[in-house]
Amino acid sequence: MPEVHRSLCPINLSLELFGDKWTLLIIRDLVFARKRHFREFLQSGERISSNILADRLNMLLEEGFVTKRGDLSHKQKAIYSLTEKGIDLVPVLAQIGIWGSKYRPVTEESAETAAMLEEGGSELIEEIKSELRQQHLGLRTVAG
Amino acid sequence: MPEVHRSLCPINLSLELFGDKWTLLIIRDLVFARKRHFREFLQSGERISSNILADRLNMLLEEGFVTKRGDLSHKQKAIYSLTEKGIDLVPVLAQIGIWGSKYRPVTEESAETAAMLEEGGSELIEEIKSELRQQHLGLRTVAG
Repeated sequence: MPEVHRSLCPINLSLELFGDKWTLLIIRDLVFARKRHFREFLQSGERISSNILADRLNMLLEEGFVTKRGDLSHKQKAIYSLTEKGIDLVPVLAQIGIWGSKYRPVTEESAETAAMLEEGGSELIEEIKSELRQQHLGLRTVAG
Repeated sequence: MPEVHRSLCPINLSLELFGDKWTLLIIRDLVFARKRHFREFLQSGERISSNILADRLNMLLEEGFVTKRGDLSHKQKAIYSLTEKGIDLVPVLAQIGIWGSKYRPVTEESAETAAMLEEGGSELIEEIKSELRQQHLGLRTVAG
């Protein structure tokens, strides 16, 4: 990670971490598809390469957006789970999704999800965040 | 612009356009600093290069995020102005700023702006959007 920042603007400092075409898609998969394993991220529609995925997951781990734990039921597999820092990106994802559904050639199904997020407002966002927190804490208990 | 999309997910389709380290900074300058001239964008803290700036402004023009008009008072200068499509990115910028101010080493001044955006909620967002619309329409009248 660069120690020298381009500026101390909060938008710039955020984009220095996740301003690219892939990082927020991994967060999206963790939030909306509840994906947790490396292989599951590879299977998303955008066909991320395993190199880029490994690179972005490492950044997310180093910067504390996610934790990585052993899966007790599958010893070879690691489980990725969003921390509070990662969970706090839900409103960012929601707004990008709402914008995209208005201006991009999305599917009807995606448009419905975005409409639901827009209508649900901050209450729905809080519900989603709360579920993700439960999931993260649950994992912590199981993985000890 | 690619005709083939990686997927039809609204978040992906949005990142295909502005998922990089620079595009949203130009939108930020148009929204919060009310910058309008090429040279003004060059002067921002992140020191965007004129090549990257020209490339991103072209994309923003082609995709209809901004319009470009002659400035009647300075014949050499072009004025960039946000369309409704660009103005609708204000909630995205606000959420990224709020996140950044919570988790990144921002200045006190930036933290205050982000706190204001968070407290102001959707009402403040609408106010900002409305001002930008007025500005855009005002330009349209002048440049006729």
